[in-house]
Amino acid sequence: MNFEQHFDTALAGLHEAGNYRVFAELERKRGSFPRATRYREDGSTHDVTVWCSNDYLGMGQHPEVVAAMHDAIERCGTGAGGTRNISGTNHGHVRLERELADLHGKDAALIFTSGYVSNWAALGTLLAKIPGIICYTDALNHASMIEGIRHSRCEKRIFKHNDWRDLDRLMAADDPAAPKLVAFESVYSMDGDIAPIAEICDVADKHGALKYIDEVHAVGMYGPRGGGVAEREGLMDRIDVIEGTLGKAFGVMGGYITGSRNLVDFVRSFASGFIFTTALPPALAAGAVASIRHLKAHDEKRQAHQEAVRKVRAALDRQGIPHMQNPSHIVPVMVGDAAKCKWISDILLEDYGIYVQPINYPTVPVGTERLRITPTPFHTDADIAHLSGALCDLWSQCALARAVA
Amino acid sequence: MNFEQHFDTALAGLHEAGNYRVFAELERKRGSFPRATRYREDGSTHDVTVWCSNDYLGMGQHPEVVAAMHDAIERCGTGAGGTRNISGTNHGHVRLERELADLHGKDAALIFTSGYVSNWAALGTLLAKIPGIICYTDALNHASMIEGIRHSRCEKRIFKHNDWRDLDRLMAADDPAAPKLVAFESVYSMDGDIAPIAEICDVADKHGALKYIDEVHAVGMYGPRGGGVAEREGLMDRIDVIEGTLGKAFGVMGGYITGSRNLVDFVRSFASGFIFTTALPPALAAGAVASIRHLKAHDEKRQAHQEAVRKVRAALDRQGIPHMQNPSHIVPVMVGDAAKCKWISDILLEDYGIYVQPINYPTVPVGTERLRITPTPFHTDADIAHLSGALCDLWSQCALARAVA
Repeated sequence: MNFEQHFDTALAGLHEAGNYRVFAELERKRGSFPRATRYREDGSTHDVTVWCSNDYLGMGQHPEVVAAMHDAIERCGTGAGGTRNISGTNHGHVRLERELADLHGKDAALIFTSGYVSNWAALGTLLAKIPGIICYTDALNHASMIEGIRHSRCEKRIFKHNDWRDLDRLMAADDPAAPKLVAFESVYSMDGDIAPIAEICDVADKHGALKYIDEVHAVGMYGPRGGGVAEREGLMDRIDVIEGTLGKAFGVMGGYITGSRNLVDFVRSFASGFIFTTALPPALAAGAVASIRHLKAHDEKRQAHQEAVRKVRAALDRQGIPHMQNPSHIVPVMVGDAAKCKWISDILLEDYGIYVQPINYPTVPVGTERLRITPTPFHTDADIAHLSGALCDLWSQCALARAVA
Repeated sequence: MNFEQHFDTALAGLHEAGNYRVFAELERKRGSFPRATRYREDGSTHDVTVWCSNDYLGMGQHPEVVAAMHDAIERCGTGAGGTRNISGTNHGHVRLERELADLHGKDAALIFTSGYVSNWAALGTLLAKIPGIICYTDALNHASMIEGIRHSRCEKRIFKHNDWRDLDRLMAADDPAAPKLVAFESVYSMDGDIAPIAEICDVADKHGALKYIDEVHAVGMYGPRGGGVAEREGLMDRIDVIEGTLGKAFGVMGGYITGSRNLVDFVRSFASGFIFTTALPPALAAGAVASIRHLKAHDEKRQAHQEAVRKVRAALDRQGIPHMQNPSHIVPVMVGDAAKCKWISDILLEDYGIYVQPINYPTVPVGTERLRITPTPFHTDADIAHLSGALCDLWSQCALARAVA
């Protein structure tokens, strides 16, 4: 077989469909977030304002996080040097796991190299190692959850997005004696909508299921201490596994689960993706501890973040730029056409110094192509005016429909 | 179902079988590697010498790597802030990929959050996206490769460990027209033996297969520039995918593949585990670049490492401590009994300040339980004498067989 030709044909297919991804090459600037230097393909550079970062609160430049990382590097060096079992467990990992268990009011926590791996490994292990278990999974769950469920090869049912009645119907149709697990997210990344957590818990409890929630787009940002939407709604104790990330609002990298001592120990003991991989560098663990502690104590950061979101929505409304209504911090500006979405993003970047990545199929359905805008407390009023003005210009040039006020 | 009871029973089973893992809690000490502070469960501490780290060359404390990480944190902050596609590609990632492509003499490279993810995602994608492909996998391949192959759901054949004749037989028995991929490692982690790379390439070429090698225990340590065993043997250009890690000899964290431009772009474009995960922090990329560059230019580090390995083997030989002969830097001291292996490790840690993790089933077969010793250029002659003396004492106390000189 001619492998090169096979790869070439597949890549050509992506180009033709407009789905070939070109990564924007940036250099983040500590102290002036959300500014960054962008490198063009010819090596030239220009300054841009990033409007699509998941460093939602700018903690990736916070002096306490920065200082904690510097300090850990000075004390412990750059890497962990091994798997958690073979010389790689650093005191900082243990501290971080305690901090996370406390954040979510759980017995225990377990850190992974990424949020992706935490979902894949935790769901993959729980579902593979509980014989006969059936997994009920929200139709819009993240790729990492889908892969974990697929990995386990368990029975699965997909319930309609955020539809607890559909979940109830599906669960009622299965053997009442079969063990069950419900997997869902709190804030969904692309639409920014929020799950009816209480209702899903009610249904899951009715059928005796384990409840697994992904709060990666919520930890640090919702709840009085940043425990996520479940904390805000007083529901953390009803959920068996709260999964989160250290790579978005906490500004570092890594993922985790929290839960009962036995459940966490079970995943720790059986998950291949946890056991056979080098542990997080001590500096990342230290940075994460500093970030989580800071956000536990500084609810005003969350207030400022929500205020920035309100301002951006209001500015878009004034210009008639259509954006999806949702109760979260994610502002999807709807374009509804892949080529126009890419074109607008390109012009924003080159002509306005505004970086917001186009989100096209397969990440979102065809016809719902969008610019996914994520305001932060560090975007100024001038930034917001510049963004909404630029979009207004481009909306006219593209002859795109305006939102009705 | 009573989930807690299920977890409890499973954990009790591990305890009974002697397979329950307790992680040694350490604090690495930059500047005095391989020393570390160990935290006991009661919170008290003592100093230990680590003899089982995969930071094989001590690059995790190298001043150039440390400085590069500090500098990147100062310039760019602590995290990447997004996936590679959505605001997370930092200039440092691009530099690192160029450095890795150069290291292995390939067109292109792609970094992942870990070596585990690089194997899982790259093999999982290649094997799933080439219709009808058959994977030939060495019987002792790492868990991450096994999971990647399993993920793809392709046809697979397991060939006897390092046995190219068996590989040839298996390949000859399959449809000559079927696309094929051979997946193997260079240095095997637990036995420290090295694959017959040239012979495996010959067989794979005869059958028109893609060749995929995992060099995680070799990159940085073998070859004139640290390109691995394939570089040492002049075979890099015969291999389609060279996979490696940034978390062992390079002293940081992360994994990668290198290969042709199209192959790498194909994995970049289709691998879920690459696409949907937060990128490596810029500081880790910068640290990795510094480490790779240093090791490209400092072959004397590799010489010193091999010299340390020779000294340890000679010291063990003088005491009659049996260790597996192999051509690598991994020194498996054979105990052959799970309980004794654990006991020796515990006494070494508490009474001698020597930390070497026991390796028991299922990581190695029952009856081959061992202490996996990894000498570094930073272990002194006194450290080596202390280790071999301690093992001599314990060999007598355990009435274990001596090696015949």
